[in-house]
Amino acid sequence: MPGPRYLEDLAVGDVHPTGSVEVTEAEAVAFATRYDPQPMHTRPDAAKTGVFGGLIASGWHTAAMVMRLIVDARPLGETPVLGLGVDELRWPKPVRPGDIIQAETEVVSITPSQSKPDYGVVRLKVTARNQLGETVFTMIPKLWVPRRPER
Amino acid sequence: MPGPRYLEDLAVGDVHPTGSVEVTEAEAVAFATRYDPQPMHTRPDAAKTGVFGGLIASGWHTAAMVMRLIVDARPLGETPVLGLGVDELRWPKPVRPGDIIQAETEVVSITPSQSKPDYGVVRLKVTARNQLGETVFTMIPKLWVPRRPER
Repeated sequence: MPGPRYLEDLAVGDVHPTGSVEVTEAEAVAFATRYDPQPMHTRPDAAKTGVFGGLIASGWHTAAMVMRLIVDARPLGETPVLGLGVDELRWPKPVRPGDIIQAETEVVSITPSQSKPDYGVVRLKVTARNQLGETVFTMIPKLWVPRRPER
Repeated sequence: MPGPRYLEDLAVGDVHPTGSVEVTEAEAVAFATRYDPQPMHTRPDAAKTGVFGGLIASGWHTAAMVMRLIVDARPLGETPVLGLGVDELRWPKPVRPGDIIQAETEVVSITPSQSKPDYGVVRLKVTARNQLGETVFTMIPKLWVPRRPER
């Protein structure tokens, strides 16, 4: 849908799927080397004998990959995806190189601002699954969304 | 402190400062180009005329930079920093290129597992501030922490 989307264009229960992304070992290691340098994320050989039985992506890398999927899916059209906060980040299963991750967003609440008449807050439930359909990441972002301007 | 830290080594109220990191425009743009490609994060010129009056770091980039500060500060010694989940991510002020970010971790709860006698869950309050002392990011991670093995 071209153009921005406004608070009035959304409805609780709206579900949008995203595209998918394949997790590569090179990117997982590069991300973690910079932002989460722990052997389970950066050293494939050492990770093999660890509790996860192999390299796993940093949880922050998974969150970042899912953010990219959401931005590309444009659930708000041309309205920027601007997070006021995120609650309940969970990683119920490890993400490993070779996994293919796809996400969906569901609108769980729409709250017009009490103090500012020109916008509201939309809570999404984001669920990301791997190629086996296993949920690997969930979160509940609160997004700033403008109301439709009066003409 | 060398060696791993165990649940018994932590106390509610323990505060650990981290080191600091300077946010560069090049890194902010590179991160966002890959994971959060929106003009406010990737296009310094376009961002100047936007609502933030200049480029701001992706919130996920800020979270990742703070994770690196925490990993380097080793609040658990050699015990891996393994997050079961994170609650209440908030970004009360924008992070901009040139900002210098420092964080601290505070232990807010310690809960031995009911079902598994060998570990527990530690909740931290993480607060990151800029060079003006303004809080730019907070979160409450839940970490898996092993109990001290019996001899």
